Amino acid sequence: MLVVMKQSATEPEIERVVNTIEDMGYEARPIPGRQRTAIGLIGNDGRVDSARLEGLEGVLEVIVVSHPYKQVSREWKAEDTVVELFNGTRIGGSDIVIMAGPCAVESEEQIVEVARSLREMGATILRGGAFKPRTSPYSFQGLGEEGLRLLALAREATGMAIVTEAVDPDGVEAVAETADIIQIGARNMQNYPLLRRAGRVGKPVLLKRGMSATIKELLLAAEYLLAEGNGDVILCERGVRSFDTHTRNLLDLTAIPVVQSLSHLPIIADPSHGTGLRSKVTPMARAAIAAGADGLMVEVHPQPDRALSDGAQSLYPEQFGELMEQIRVIAKALDRGFVPALAPPVVR
Amino acid sequence: MLVVMKQSATEPEIERVVNTIEDMGYEARPIPGRQRTAIGLIGNDGRVDSARLEGLEGVLEVIVVSHPYKQVSREWKAEDTVVELFNGTRIGGSDIVIMAGPCAVESEEQIVEVARSLREMGATILRGGAFKPRTSPYSFQGLGEEGLRLLALAREATGMAIVTEAVDPDGVEAVAETADIIQIGARNMQNYPLLRRAGRVGKPVLLKRGMSATIKELLLAAEYLLAEGNGDVILCERGVRSFDTHTRNLLDLTAIPVVQSLSHLPIIADPSHGTGLRSKVTPMARAAIAAGADGLMVEVHPQPDRALSDGAQSLYPEQFGELMEQIRVIAKALDRGFVPALAPPVVR
Amino acid sequence: MLVVMKQSATEPEIERVVNTIEDMGYEARPIPGRQRTAIGLIGNDGRVDSARLEGLEGVLEVIVVSHPYKQVSREWKAEDTVVELFNGTRIGGSDIVIMAGPCAVESEEQIVEVARSLREMGATILRGGAFKPRTSPYSFQGLGEEGLRLLALAREATGMAIVTEAVDPDGVEAVAETADIIQIGARNMQNYPLLRRAGRVGKPVLLKRGMSATIKELLLAAEYLLAEGNGDVILCERGVRSFDTHTRNLLDLTAIPVVQSLSHLPIIADPSHGTGLRSKVTPMARAAIAAGADGLMVEVHPQPDRALSDGAQSLYPEQFGELMEQIRVIAKALDRGFVPALAPPVVR
Amino acid sequence: MLVVMKQSATEPEIERVVNTIEDMGYEARPIPGRQRTAIGLIGNDGRVDSARLEGLEGVLEVIVVSHPYKQVSREWKAEDTVVELFNGTRIGGSDIVIMAGPCAVESEEQIVEVARSLREMGATILRGGAFKPRTSPYSFQGLGEEGLRLLALAREATGMAIVTEAVDPDGVEAVAETADIIQIGARNMQNYPLLRRAGRVGKPVLLKRGMSATIKELLLAAEYLLAEGNGDVILCERGVRSFDTHTRNLLDLTAIPVVQSLSHLPIIADPSHGTGLRSKVTPMARAAIAAGADGLMVEVHPQPDRALSDGAQSLYPEQFGELMEQIRVIAKALDRGFVPALAPPVVR
Repeated sequence: MLVVMKQSATEPEIERVVNTIEDMGYEARPIPGRQRTAIGLIGNDGRVDSARLEGLEGVLEVIVVSHPYKQVSREWKAEDTVVELFNGTRIGGSDIVIMAGPCAVESEEQIVEVARSLREMGATILRGGAFKPRTSPYSFQGLGEEGLRLLALAREATGMAIVTEAVDPDGVEAVAETADIIQIGARNMQNYPLLRRAGRVGKPVLLKRGMSATIKELLLAAEYLLAEGNGDVILCERGVRSFDTHTRNLLDLTAIPVVQSLSHLPIIADPSHGTGLRSKVTPMARAAIAAGADGLMVEVHPQPDRALSDGAQSLYPEQFGELMEQIRVIAKALDRGFVPALAPPVVR
Repeated sequence: MLVVMKQSATEPEIERVVNTIEDMGYEARPIPGRQRTAIGLIGNDGRVDSARLEGLEGVLEVIVVSHPYKQVSREWKAEDTVVELFNGTRIGGSDIVIMAGPCAVESEEQIVEVARSLREMGATILRGGAFKPRTSPYSFQGLGEEGLRLLALAREATGMAIVTEAVDPDGVEAVAETADIIQIGARNMQNYPLLRRAGRVGKPVLLKRGMSATIKELLLAAEYLLAEGNGDVILCERGVRSFDTHTRNLLDLTAIPVVQSLSHLPIIADPSHGTGLRSKVTPMARAAIAAGADGLMVEVHPQPDRALSDGAQSLYPEQFGELMEQIRVIAKALDRGFVPALAPPVVR
Repeated sequence: MLVVMKQSATEPEIERVVNTIEDMGYEARPIPGRQRTAIGLIGNDGRVDSARLEGLEGVLEVIVVSHPYKQVSREWKAEDTVVELFNGTRIGGSDIVIMAGPCAVESEEQIVEVARSLREMGATILRGGAFKPRTSPYSFQGLGEEGLRLLALAREATGMAIVTEAVDPDGVEAVAETADIIQIGARNMQNYPLLRRAGRVGKPVLLKRGMSATIKELLLAAEYLLAEGNGDVILCERGVRSFDTHTRNLLDLTAIPVVQSLSHLPIIADPSHGTGLRSKVTPMARAAIAAGADGLMVEVHPQPDRALSDGAQSLYPEQFGELMEQIRVIAKALDRGFVPALAPPVVR
Repeated sequence: MLVVMKQSATEPEIERVVNTIEDMGYEARPIPGRQRTAIGLIGNDGRVDSARLEGLEGVLEVIVVSHPYKQVSREWKAEDTVVELFNGTRIGGSDIVIMAGPCAVESEEQIVEVARSLREMGATILRGGAFKPRTSPYSFQGLGEEGLRLLALAREATGMAIVTEAVDPDGVEAVAETADIIQIGARNMQNYPLLRRAGRVGKPVLLKRGMSATIKELLLAAEYLLAEGNGDVILCERGVRSFDTHTRNLLDLTAIPVVQSLSHLPIIADPSHGTGLRSKVTPMARAAIAAGADGLMVEVHPQPDRALSDGAQSLYPEQFGELMEQIRVIAKALDRGFVPALAPPVVR
């Protein structure tokens, strides 16, 4: 940490900063410059609260040099984290993984039918919301526990792994009983009681980037999960808030290589929420793979115009099939393969 | 709702939109224009999900005309909502209300001492965090239940009402036992299980605007509270995310008159989180009152440079006193008064 | 400037940074920390291009400590700059200054009539666009030279000073012949050839903050003017781009105290463009004064619903009169006065 | 255009809106809804100024349905625009085009050497700034006319076409004498006198998206060029301003398919300015091609750590070569080819 003093800072002001740093248990090292003095704080273990220094007289600004996250950092663990699932899917290795399915689970027929066609086209993880956080209290909020039961049926019918969202701490255990990956949605990225519970339940967690979260905040939210002992964390870029209204969000694909250089955790992209428009999902899914994403989460619905939520951003199954063809070629350009498709389950 | 068709839209495409609207139970009214056809959806009660229409062939865009919120709207209730507390404080009337106190409750001495001086200077509501949502898992997270106990002591000592934050649904009841107003923080503005629980517990709720929430989203979050039967809701502008790093957030004071024209709920401003810098708190507090805010929430700490959290944005008690003088004058320019100061409690 | 090395940086990488700094003519001072090494660059006169260092192997990030602007800075000149006009108006002193008038000059009758009523209500500077930069090539682009002539007539009729916009380098001289203050619009804040020409023409300049300019960029744009020898520069906050569509821009009033602590230049606010909505202009004008602005620029039109541009954000003259009453009271709270009103010119 | 009335709007208020619309020369069509009345304005040719209606009593909001741009729109011209250059390069067809070169022209040796190696690796257009708009007045501003002369030498030596920036209206002709494509930089996207001059000079124009320009504003800026009779316009996405400081800008790749559905103009991406970091240029260049971009503009410098500007975002020539290999594979996934490489010029 570097405390930059004003040009007009007096000796006693500089001394007070030095004393405050030492008082906090760290070493202070003044660095005189041509324009102004700066004071280095040595020994920061990521826990120093800069507020105490920022408020002192004569201080111009406090610059954080050490990174506030630890276990998520590549400097903590150099090799890539790989998350392994019961059906052989490995997330974060050299193979690209595809999670697909409808925004919300609506009926047994809907979810099993779509799961079957997705498995055939090469997806190995089925997404589907049972608990839906909706902006309006009057929108469809999901089937709840019944949705979880239907997801389990679809897994049995296809062998796909299940990713579905938990929306409150008390619901984490119920979701964890069914889900192979617990999803934390963008609105809950900084819901710390939920993160702590999800970090303790013993299942991999998919953590979506918040609407206006910086990459540092995303990594700090993941740190909550690792701090509880859960290292199986997958990050997900899903678009940030911006000023243009043509798309629902602004898909920040540069976050993918940035996260990969800062952290060992796998990162995928969600071009469905990231754009909000069916016709933009395919180009942005291709772009995410080309940017180096470890996988995709894509909304596919058998009848998008009858979907109970987010129909406008759901692909038709045929469109998903074409997308799969295209990204297989792109993966080659990056020397990456695909998670092997699942064999059809034996009918007993 | 207005479905705008592409110039190239065919008759069958237009018909399909009409049929889909009727299928959803509403009336469709085509409006031919010079460049293109638009189709009005009549009878929208705020529940129409536009996604189903946006995805249809030939549709250029769907424009939402009716507002998706209901009970929070001024069209639902024309007169201002006034929230009344046990100590006579009324929030949302012509009088301006001041909530002040430290970011976090740290000790009995700290909270009682600061409460006494704040009461003397005219604040009638004491703020102080017992449960603190922190970006890093390694930062001080608040005293918890013990913090609530100390807040109750400070109320006894001063007669001030208490506002403090609840961070998860299960904690709402415990907070509600002590707090006179339950605070929902910016990170939790779209934590719907928390909102639902807070809406049912029978205490007024202070709802802070999320980091990148639109005003529509803020009002829809408040709608969750009203939909549970709780009409005693106070909104709070506390800064939104922006691109300039000089301040922690960008305090959006225009949101105050905008909310006041759209909704009957009171709205206050938090210039401490809104700026993050002590030297900017006073000017922005004055500006908020001048913009028409119904009150302020301000961080004051007896020794800001020793605060366990957010010290850099906390005023010294003397600075708070000067601020009170200035805003009393400004209030006059708007023909507004101040909530009457509390008499010192009788020592028994 | 501080070059922060990766934890994994090797000795030769550190040495190469040191050599590069020395090669650039500055002194390098390595600062070993617990987690990583940082290297201070001593002697930066604000001209160091960090790009050359950022790209070196082993570098994590480069942090700019010295500020890149010089003459605009309070560290360069401690006392406030005061800009004086022919009619006695002083901008930047303790008195608040009001610039008002229509968005565009439309006719002699319109501009002279509105100028007369504005002078009576206390404004001493008349605004009015002769050259209008418009987003669409099909919108009204102003009366051009004829507009300048009409502004001169209005000055003669009222004694008010004139502020009007120059939109290209070649037009600066023509505008300077009529205008008492040359306005550089938000779209042109980084139009450097225009800034250089405006800096050389010998008239005060009003520089509006760009749509998404940081405060640092605003000050650097002003530095272009001062570097040409023109110290009579007035800054203007007029709203930045944000994600909420309720208002045209997000008026960033915190920029006012931030600029005042960094720079000696006066700063005013434009709540008309800052909100884009007539009903929000008055509250935000009050708020700007309460935040410490040195003045206001406000659009007033005798018949807003017939205005050729920006009618929706123009006040009626009566509304402007009420606003003036309110801000006189607010100014008192800050111990500030108003620029003295002009006497009616003697009719000869 | 749709004028949405408040629920409380009275009959006379509705009538006044109808009369104002008719007064403006258009047809008004009231559409009564369940909650409120809306009034359609029929016959809008893109020139209606909504401000006049927004300010009327009883109006809640005005929604623009027709698009304000005309000639740039796909509804005006369905087939893709293809820009052809002297050396056979076609921009906007099925083939992908690569523009590459240093940020700034620095010397004959630098520009000719880099041009030779770029030509060999398949680029057909050479970029290089002679006039550089720089945020600080103290940064290197380019070689000016001498830079143009050196670019012409590099063209002679390689057969590559030249793209370089014009920064003020008077400089357009000089730039046009040398350049095969005139670049308008992001800071000048709304510099209308510059756009008008560039639209009249008879050379193709590369128009970069402004720092915080919406897609609509980008298309309206292009409309200025087409309105002057210049149809050879190429758009360029180069990143927008956002809140995360990890990258210089946020490269908005979704803008590519969005522009392609709204407009017939070609669009390329600039991942160098879009990220500002060398290590992120290659992944984002790949992503841009995968998203459907018609080409790339990439900074390449023979010795990035000695570059006079933007060295940190310049690729080494070898890195550029590897990138070319990767995007050739990605292009195949989209059934696209590459602009044929140039033969080495005959040495005479």
